Amino acid sequence: MTIITRVEALDIRFPTSRDLDGSDAMNAAPDYSATYVILHTDQGEDVTGHGLTFTIGRGNEICVAAVNSLASRLTGQRLEDITQRMGEFWRELTSGDSQLRWLGPEKGVIHLASAAMINAIWDLWAKRESKPVWKLLADMSPEQLVNCLDFRFVTDALTPEEAISILKRRESGKAEREAELRKNGYPAYTTSAGWLGYSEDKMRRLCREAIDDGWQHFKQKVGGDIEEDRRRAAILREEIGEERTLMMDANQMWDVDESIVNMRRLAEYNPHWIEEPTSPDDILGHAEIRRRLGNIGVATGEHCHNRVMFKQLMQAEAIDYCQLDAARMGGLNEVIIVLLLAAKFDVPVCPHGGGVGLCEYTQHISMFDYIAISGSLDGRLLEYVDHLHDHFVDPVQIRSGHYLVPDSPGYSITMKPDSRINYTFPDGQAWQ
Amino acid sequence: MTIITRVEALDIRFPTSRDLDGSDAMNAAPDYSATYVILHTDQGEDVTGHGLTFTIGRGNEICVAAVNSLASRLTGQRLEDITQRMGEFWRELTSGDSQLRWLGPEKGVIHLASAAMINAIWDLWAKRESKPVWKLLADMSPEQLVNCLDFRFVTDALTPEEAISILKRRESGKAEREAELRKNGYPAYTTSAGWLGYSEDKMRRLCREAIDDGWQHFKQKVGGDIEEDRRRAAILREEIGEERTLMMDANQMWDVDESIVNMRRLAEYNPHWIEEPTSPDDILGHAEIRRRLGNIGVATGEHCHNRVMFKQLMQAEAIDYCQLDAARMGGLNEVIIVLLLAAKFDVPVCPHGGGVGLCEYTQHISMFDYIAISGSLDGRLLEYVDHLHDHFVDPVQIRSGHYLVPDSPGYSITMKPDSRINYTFPDGQAWQ
Repeated sequence: MTIITRVEALDIRFPTSRDLDGSDAMNAAPDYSATYVILHTDQGEDVTGHGLTFTIGRGNEICVAAVNSLASRLTGQRLEDITQRMGEFWRELTSGDSQLRWLGPEKGVIHLASAAMINAIWDLWAKRESKPVWKLLADMSPEQLVNCLDFRFVTDALTPEEAISILKRRESGKAEREAELRKNGYPAYTTSAGWLGYSEDKMRRLCREAIDDGWQHFKQKVGGDIEEDRRRAAILREEIGEERTLMMDANQMWDVDESIVNMRRLAEYNPHWIEEPTSPDDILGHAEIRRRLGNIGVATGEHCHNRVMFKQLMQAEAIDYCQLDAARMGGLNEVIIVLLLAAKFDVPVCPHGGGVGLCEYTQHISMFDYIAISGSLDGRLLEYVDHLHDHFVDPVQIRSGHYLVPDSPGYSITMKPDSRINYTFPDGQAWQ
Repeated sequence: MTIITRVEALDIRFPTSRDLDGSDAMNAAPDYSATYVILHTDQGEDVTGHGLTFTIGRGNEICVAAVNSLASRLTGQRLEDITQRMGEFWRELTSGDSQLRWLGPEKGVIHLASAAMINAIWDLWAKRESKPVWKLLADMSPEQLVNCLDFRFVTDALTPEEAISILKRRESGKAEREAELRKNGYPAYTTSAGWLGYSEDKMRRLCREAIDDGWQHFKQKVGGDIEEDRRRAAILREEIGEERTLMMDANQMWDVDESIVNMRRLAEYNPHWIEEPTSPDDILGHAEIRRRLGNIGVATGEHCHNRVMFKQLMQAEAIDYCQLDAARMGGLNEVIIVLLLAAKFDVPVCPHGGGVGLCEYTQHISMFDYIAISGSLDGRLLEYVDHLHDHFVDPVQIRSGHYLVPDSPGYSITMKPDSRINYTFPDGQAWQ
């Protein structure tokens, strides 16, 4: 038995804006940050659950305030009482306090805060089972998994019964797929060379280093001046050659018609997808862009705030790639619902990784997806961003453009104590 | 010249849950609350701008934190510099700090906080012009109005040029419509008798009182047990007769298919509309419900978080009535965009009024809409809830089920100083 005795929320920020790491057309100078949650237990300081939600700096204090407002809903609870009825618990935390629900519902700050807390429960649960989260999930029966989920507002597209039949379809072959991942890793793409604030020299150097390291898939930020976007695309294409993949990411800079005009001007560089061309809320806009662009894929999801939005992106045939975010959705429970929707609608899931801790989370999601839900690597790529991994106790490991299977118990999100202290805002040493 | 010297944010809560005022199926016991913003100026305490965003209790402190995080973007600014470029200013406040934008974008806590601040600017502006907000707007030229708006992410449905032509179409007849409103007021419906937590006796008594007061349109909360909903509908229909209007409001309790099944069971009571049958994010779900229900209108909007969502609700022909919320949308600027979209798509706007201060706001919106945009009262009804008006310096005035034209300068949202002090949470007298 494990009782959650205290919920601690930390405001941790990394001054990434100093080097323009993570810079794009919408987000000129982000400081990658985490609203970091520690669930303390009655089992001592060796048994704690960790989770974070990702923000880009200012406003992280608002998410911390939201975690503190939600904390009383976890304090004093037994882990086992939560995990036995994980789906119901999820609804209670995200919607059970109707006064707090009003602030969303299921979106923005209150949902981000819930995500950190829910992911911390999964981390604690997996640690108690001595398994990495992907393995905890992959070992569950279809019925156990569905018991973790809340199907409210998606039953017109996916019922619990359909979810079980999707999971049953993949029960055979799980061991083989796990073995394959252990051998080859999960394929990935890199965003590290393509940030908007980087100079030409830095881009070329990073491309060459990445190719030497075995990377096959590259992403470029666009959405600034279109001539400048074309110039940078030409540089990247020159460096990576025609045989490698180039994705583009506009970070919501365009209106619907603008997206189409601009992507036609970038088409000669053969982009694999255009990511976030317009408002993340614009389901019908993405569908229109996809219809009119034809052979350039449309991708979105890092700002898609819940399962109801993803359901519609799929119903409307608006996206070719689903880029869910492990910390913007209401934690792993809601992420699994989206994996199941994506399997039903045959949309590959390529999670968002551009942020502190997101790569650590998403490796679990994609590996579980492959083993137990999609059963396929076709069109699937995990995002990789080469920043801030050294702050984690179990950082992601990359080899030749593939994520290696994480084996430590938990959700890989536990941050080193020194990092937590030094980057606490505004009192940590890094901010002095 | 007027300089904003300080942004003050108050956490004001009314203990409405004690009497179950405002109770519905999703929100069992709300404490109507306000994140209340005062813009202090260099012109002394007689020249201040007031605005609020509405919440239902817990979590109001998170919105207050968000206002404090945004405050530096207003402090030190000249009112005239803002109002001369109101559209650009709006985008700067809601999206200009990309770090804060990450928390939405344009949704949830950060957008609610922006709304309070933006509405406070409109209040200050109107007070400086010695006009009520509706009149300030109605007196603007089409070009001046469009200069107040940000069309980002809606140009596929509405361009600035189209907006100007919609406004020009209504330039003639403005004086006549204003005179008509002054004579007759703006038609309204009442929610005061239909809260879920009220007993049969209380419902019957409130219905009779409302009919005596001249009300013709009534709203009932549904979404609890369906037999209980039917029983309460029968009581209300019995009291108000066949000739008066009965609306129903499910407050998001149902999935898509459930909405259709349940409304078919309530159809015999002849509901004028079903409000919020399902998730406020489910554009395609509302469209499906509307298609399958046929002659019961579909209404939603109080949780619709921005213009991009309303654009799609209209593009998808998902709603018969647009129930925008004056404090959930990013303030009056974004509300006006939705009024223009609604005019283009021929959807009547019936703003949400169930909350503290919302009736005070929405009277300005609907009167301006009638005078300058829609030019019609067909299908339009303002919501009226008979709570908490006595806390305002210029409360709404109702006569025979109509709102009377407000004449005091500003946005009618200035709360009495005693109320602000007594209901401050947690230290005010009301909370001791």
